[in-house]
Amino acid sequence: MVLLIHHSASPFSRKIRIQMSEKKVLFVLKEEEPWNLSQDVYKLNPAGTLPIFLYDGNFISGNYAISEYLEEFIKEIRLYPEDIKQRAETRRIIEWFDVKFYDEVYKKIVFEKIYKRFSSGSAPDSKTLKVGLNNLNYHLEYVDWLAEKNNYLSGESFSLADVTAAAHLSIIDYLGDIPWDNYKNAKLWYSKIKSRPSFKDILKDTIRGILPSKHYANLDF
Amino acid sequence: MVLLIHHSASPFSRKIRIQMSEKKVLFVLKEEEPWNLSQDVYKLNPAGTLPIFLYDGNFISGNYAISEYLEEFIKEIRLYPEDIKQRAETRRIIEWFDVKFYDEVYKKIVFEKIYKRFSSGSAPDSKTLKVGLNNLNYHLEYVDWLAEKNNYLSGESFSLADVTAAAHLSIIDYLGDIPWDNYKNAKLWYSKIKSRPSFKDILKDTIRGILPSKHYANLDF
Repeated sequence: MVLLIHHSASPFSRKIRIQMSEKKVLFVLKEEEPWNLSQDVYKLNPAGTLPIFLYDGNFISGNYAISEYLEEFIKEIRLYPEDIKQRAETRRIIEWFDVKFYDEVYKKIVFEKIYKRFSSGSAPDSKTLKVGLNNLNYHLEYVDWLAEKNNYLSGESFSLADVTAAAHLSIIDYLGDIPWDNYKNAKLWYSKIKSRPSFKDILKDTIRGILPSKHYANLDF
Repeated sequence: MVLLIHHSASPFSRKIRIQMSEKKVLFVLKEEEPWNLSQDVYKLNPAGTLPIFLYDGNFISGNYAISEYLEEFIKEIRLYPEDIKQRAETRRIIEWFDVKFYDEVYKKIVFEKIYKRFSSGSAPDSKTLKVGLNNLNYHLEYVDWLAEKNNYLSGESFSLADVTAAAHLSIIDYLGDIPWDNYKNAKLWYSKIKSRPSFKDILKDTIRGILPSKHYANLDF
């Protein structure tokens, strides 16, 4: 049995949870707040990032290390395309979300709306928030374009690129900040991901003290 | 033959160059300035990041996508350990540098000292620089600790973790900001990496308008 130390506002935690569900890995969750990590977390991961993956006396930290480990370890159900060039495209999009989206959107919207509230108790900075929301539109345009071109973000098949993108977007969607109606193809793509059994638990997620947007868990949104 | 669009102040470009040299891939370089990317770069990579890897009519962008592609494609010379758990440790350290070090050190020192100069022409902000240099010490302590524990950063063998860490540190070292004498184990480790044939071209690198530190290319520093 795997224990995942996670938080529902951490996109990397969501990504690994969905990946494990897709790969039929059984796991239990233990919550840690990213803005208030315990010393136990730092002992397991000096980088102080979530999630941390524990099983059988071993532990792995780092979103990239965990997701690649899972792909290498459980080969029966793969979330990478067979073709090596297609895999590069999948990883390009994963990096897009884990680095670029995280930097340009997550750090500006989620840090302001959630982290600040629970760490310093201060209100979000409206300028930073505005930049984040602007950036979000640019990213949604890109998702919309990818989703129009192919069935899934990195090609014709569902992959870890879809898992990663949906993990990131779902947190912004929890906050009600995604103008889905302006991005029809992105919306259609997200509704496909939302209806996967691996996404069920994500839609039940709650972040302490913050209600999800009305449509957050609706498959028809 | 591979064409790599790169810049010598880009740690991800340096990483892929060293990785290709280790794997005996022949390549030519084409320079693009990260603060002044051409439209051609955006056409190949809408994320606007370097390097971009081109061969045979194909192109791959994204540091993570390129490095994993090279590992998968050229299996004769591997920069990942054989053991799956060791590979996770290698990738954990890669992520440490590519994300954490890049954010906490590179963005504060190299952005201030190099990017600003060539984009806006303004002087570095001394406060930001100080934060970056402080963070650098924390990272060097960690490298020192890893290098004391093992021969190489992620275990007993040379791996992509060493390539990545050295790629990042070499740019800071070009600027003369690394207090090597305070970190004996880190220094010993870096001197091992520096003497590898794959590092030769890195030590010949120049960044327009900025002289390398006196000891930059010295194997005995």
